[in-house]
Amino acid sequence: MAYIQLNNQLPGITGLLENRPDTGDPIRALTQILLRGPNTLTELERELIATLVSYKNQCRFCTSAHAATVIALGGSAELLNQVYNDLDNAAVSDKMKALLVIAGKVQQLGTAVTPENVAAAKAQGASDKEIHDTVLIAALFCLYNRYVDGLGTYRPEDPAYYEKLASRLITVGYTRPREGITVTGEASFH
Amino acid sequence: MAYIQLNNQLPGITGLLENRPDTGDPIRALTQILLRGPNTLTELERELIATLVSYKNQCRFCTSAHAATVIALGGSAELLNQVYNDLDNAAVSDKMKALLVIAGKVQQLGTAVTPENVAAAKAQGASDKEIHDTVLIAALFCLYNRYVDGLGTYRPEDPAYYEKLASRLITVGYTRPREGITVTGEASFH
Repeated sequence: MAYIQLNNQLPGITGLLENRPDTGDPIRALTQILLRGPNTLTELERELIATLVSYKNQCRFCTSAHAATVIALGGSAELLNQVYNDLDNAAVSDKMKALLVIAGKVQQLGTAVTPENVAAAKAQGASDKEIHDTVLIAALFCLYNRYVDGLGTYRPEDPAYYEKLASRLITVGYTRPREGITVTGEASFH
Repeated sequence: MAYIQLNNQLPGITGLLENRPDTGDPIRALTQILLRGPNTLTELERELIATLVSYKNQCRFCTSAHAATVIALGGSAELLNQVYNDLDNAAVSDKMKALLVIAGKVQQLGTAVTPENVAAAKAQGASDKEIHDTVLIAALFCLYNRYVDGLGTYRPEDPAYYEKLASRLITVGYTRPREGITVTGEASFH
């Protein structure tokens, strides 16, 4: 289980957010705006950024959760493999390729992003908001991945857990579940 | 200037937070709770965590801003040099040394934090809340540093800018400046 005592037995990020609503609520609010707010990037495209960064940060909980969300939104395991390992040939737009390059640079370090990376995205039609949101989503998942793994949280092995979590992230989003509504699926894991 | 058009000419993170209040406000709220909320870690200790992570992430704006804040809170350039380069001999408590080791691990990757790192902090009396907040402050600055540098924001060279910013971070904190109150010092830089 986690390195610290939590007030619940929820896995991964869900246990941390529930354990500390004072810090969890602004993190949820930021995520809801970036991944579910009005945007010219689709939810699938934004979840792809989150998944790629989580994969590069070797965060298995977040990678599993957001990969399942990408698939539930119409993506596929093949698409994810392309994005991880063969971006040039991935089945995404040229604009998304350029934005995913930027996201991958952000995962390394902010200073890894070059003016040329940004110019390439603009040349493919990326707007300033799309570039901003790509950078901030990538930076946010650098926070999430470190929070989840740095506190050694519990990671379910059962793929069904992540499918249920993905379903909630699509229908409910990232806001706090209403009182009396249990977080989808966690009961099966404790 | 920044890689994208902002609605202001403020430097570093200040320009980004002002440019997008929808994402800026939850980031400010999270930071205010972690760095200025009730805590058994002092504000100086929490700013030391922020500064060390920013230094390791090579984010010159954030390192300058939080180093100036550490100094304004009673720290010194010598203390900062010790924390960066010679933590074993730094003039901080053994508990803080163990927490700063954890923060340094979080800067690398969440999975770099080991059960032994956490046990060492607990052996020096660190509470679960202190360990949690250390990990989340370190993770938050991994977000900030990437946001600031990933968008190529403007970085003032004048140390007086960071001294004024530090003064505001101590007296006002991380919440949004009230309307009509200008952000300390920025007028001198544009």
